[in-house]
Amino acid sequence: MTERREPTYVYSEKQVAEKSDIARHFIDTRTRLNQNVDRADNFLVKRFYNLDHNTYLEGALPAKYKELMGLVASACLRCDDCISYHIIQSYRLGVTRAEQEEAINVALVVGGSIVIPHLRRAYALLTELYA
Amino acid sequence: MTERREPTYVYSEKQVAEKSDIARHFIDTRTRLNQNVDRADNFLVKRFYNLDHNTYLEGALPAKYKELMGLVASACLRCDDCISYHIIQSYRLGVTRAEQEEAINVALVVGGSIVIPHLRRAYALLTELYA
Amino acid sequence: MTERREPTYVYSEKQVAEKSDIARHFIDTRTRLNQNVDRADNFLVKRFYNLDHNTYLEGALPAKYKELMGLVASACLRCDDCISYHIIQSYRLGVTRAEQEEAINVALVVGGSIVIPHLRRAYALLTELYA
Amino acid sequence: MTERREPTYVYSEKQVAEKSDIARHFIDTRTRLNQNVDRADNFLVKRFYNLDHNTYLEGALPAKYKELMGLVASACLRCDDCISYHIIQSYRLGVTRAEQEEAINVALVVGGSIVIPHLRRAYALLTELYA
Amino acid sequence: MTERREPTYVYSEKQVAEKSDIARHFIDTRTRLNQNVDRADNFLVKRFYNLDHNTYLEGALPAKYKELMGLVASACLRCDDCISYHIIQSYRLGVTRAEQEEAINVALVVGGSIVIPHLRRAYALLTELYA
Amino acid sequence: MTERREPTYVYSEKQVAEKSDIARHFIDTRTRLNQNVDRADNFLVKRFYNLDHNTYLEGALPAKYKELMGLVASACLRCDDCISYHIIQSYRLGVTRAEQEEAINVALVVGGSIVIPHLRRAYALLTELYA
Repeated sequence: MTERREPTYVYSEKQVAEKSDIARHFIDTRTRLNQNVDRADNFLVKRFYNLDHNTYLEGALPAKYKELMGLVASACLRCDDCISYHIIQSYRLGVTRAEQEEAINVALVVGGSIVIPHLRRAYALLTELYA
Repeated sequence: MTERREPTYVYSEKQVAEKSDIARHFIDTRTRLNQNVDRADNFLVKRFYNLDHNTYLEGALPAKYKELMGLVASACLRCDDCISYHIIQSYRLGVTRAEQEEAINVALVVGGSIVIPHLRRAYALLTELYA
Repeated sequence: MTERREPTYVYSEKQVAEKSDIARHFIDTRTRLNQNVDRADNFLVKRFYNLDHNTYLEGALPAKYKELMGLVASACLRCDDCISYHIIQSYRLGVTRAEQEEAINVALVVGGSIVIPHLRRAYALLTELYA
Repeated sequence: MTERREPTYVYSEKQVAEKSDIARHFIDTRTRLNQNVDRADNFLVKRFYNLDHNTYLEGALPAKYKELMGLVASACLRCDDCISYHIIQSYRLGVTRAEQEEAINVALVVGGSIVIPHLRRAYALLTELYA
Repeated sequence: MTERREPTYVYSEKQVAEKSDIARHFIDTRTRLNQNVDRADNFLVKRFYNLDHNTYLEGALPAKYKELMGLVASACLRCDDCISYHIIQSYRLGVTRAEQEEAINVALVVGGSIVIPHLRRAYALLTELYA
Repeated sequence: MTERREPTYVYSEKQVAEKSDIARHFIDTRTRLNQNVDRADNFLVKRFYNLDHNTYLEGALPAKYKELMGLVASACLRCDDCISYHIIQSYRLGVTRAEQEEAINVALVVGGSIVIPHLRRAYALLTELYA
């Protein structure tokens, strides 16, 4: 069985928020909304969050590629919040802009032109992060 | 054949709007936008609205459970407006917060983490309604 | 916090398989394919299966309504295997055919005519189960 | 308000079934499964079927273009049965193969490579119908 | 092989933006965001944009019907930006409001009530464009 | 700009077909159906196939991770044919079974339990390929 362990981040969430307005707005909104979820203390939601966290740890695949897979999945399923999240996580793990763009290309070709509005917003975030 | 009849609401839409800013904003926007739709007077749209209305009446299943099913469907298909609508309808029919959370849990496990951003916004509405 | 507990089934899976050819074929195929999954012994898959199991237990909502919610979600997301599974589970929990049809109606109106091919196959299973 | 009326078909369903094995298999299966649905005599399902029928009548848009729109929607949402249905309906209304292929191209570019397996099966049907 | 050629527009994008606030806001945002995408100069994104452009040219099917097919696909897949884009393109090609409504009806019946929030916003745009 | 080049395969498609019945059946069916598509010689379909091919070449990201991203996208969008294709491509590029399982886990957690029937069939293919 593959061992799972926490990845090592190149940047903190705070550093990301300082670098990009889009990222900061996303992180702040998510933090505020998660407070309601945390206070509700729903057993199965907590279990799901925990499972979600475990999925992206270092394992048989490096964490950075799994974050990019999360990005591809999010772009195919067209969820802006999820796209922002995985772009930020990938950035924090040292993924280059060229790598992020290639992952988005996979989502674009699999998911089609319906992905384009999300791609546009993703590029706005990439532009700020990699400025 | 099962008889269908209008459900009895515990709260009016007006009471909901007074209790929650999120609900009021949703109801006001929907009302404003529906005016365009009503004025267009499109035959098939009216037929669809009518069919939609009939689907959630008291019948073989109590209306409250069908509103919760509408909530599950909306969360799985990830439509914030539809989620807000069915949370409000369920609340108006006397559904408890614990029951709403369990319905959302079904959507979360069936639909996956892509549901989480919608779950966060749903919890913000639940928090206001059940304060 | 709501207590969760196993529901009481009116029928066993074996009884369902004896009553309906469609159900038996579904159950046999799933059992055979799950053997590969079980043998792989993937930690996160097992965690997900466990979370999935916990979602449908008796809780704030009766298990039978949560199985019907699973049916609505499955029909909206258009997965025949998931539809068959939740129809069978609902049947095993004593849900009537009229209740199953109303749940499917919610999925039909939310999900649209794209649900119809799945509805047709669902009715074939309902017809065998409730013969 | 636009008047709606039944379109004039160039070919009957029977002629289509004689021309294409794929079409005949689809039509036979649908007919067989619809018998269960008809016998169930569910009020809302009948209403939905009626609404569905009315949507594709001659109106402001010629019926043939609405069948092609149904094809595009079905291919984007990736439902083989719905794709077969709308290809057959379009064929029966005199749509050319080149027109069908262009409609499928819209679905391919909007929906992405995930549409390709359905496109392959659609082309098998087109090949038989337009032989 | 069918020849493809650029369609003739009845209205320019500028005229549309002058007629409708919703259209202008959409066009401005898209233009601003596309600048990031253009500057990134990603080879495959450019190829995809080019393919996308070619899909909607005059061909075996008139461009106006393909824009309406794009509208149906966008509404079924529930992307507000894509819906706005294809409504504007259809308007620019001389499509009537009644034709746009019929296309949206196809999306509504195929895609279900989950399309309704997008239909409401589409009608707001239609109301401004056809005022 | 990143250079793109063909990846080096560890196994040929023929070797894969000899190792796994499921793979052979998939490859044979796809080959047979693609003949219709090839004969139709549709310009935009060929362009799309070409774009699709270019997306998965060696580039900023190694081809093997892009095939796994294609697998994640396919599993999230729930297309068995696409899942089989990317599992086979990943296998041909030397991806281990543990890596394939981790990619599928990302799809499972993002896409939810609706992915499970596809996961079961994916594991059947993995079991044959990595026997």
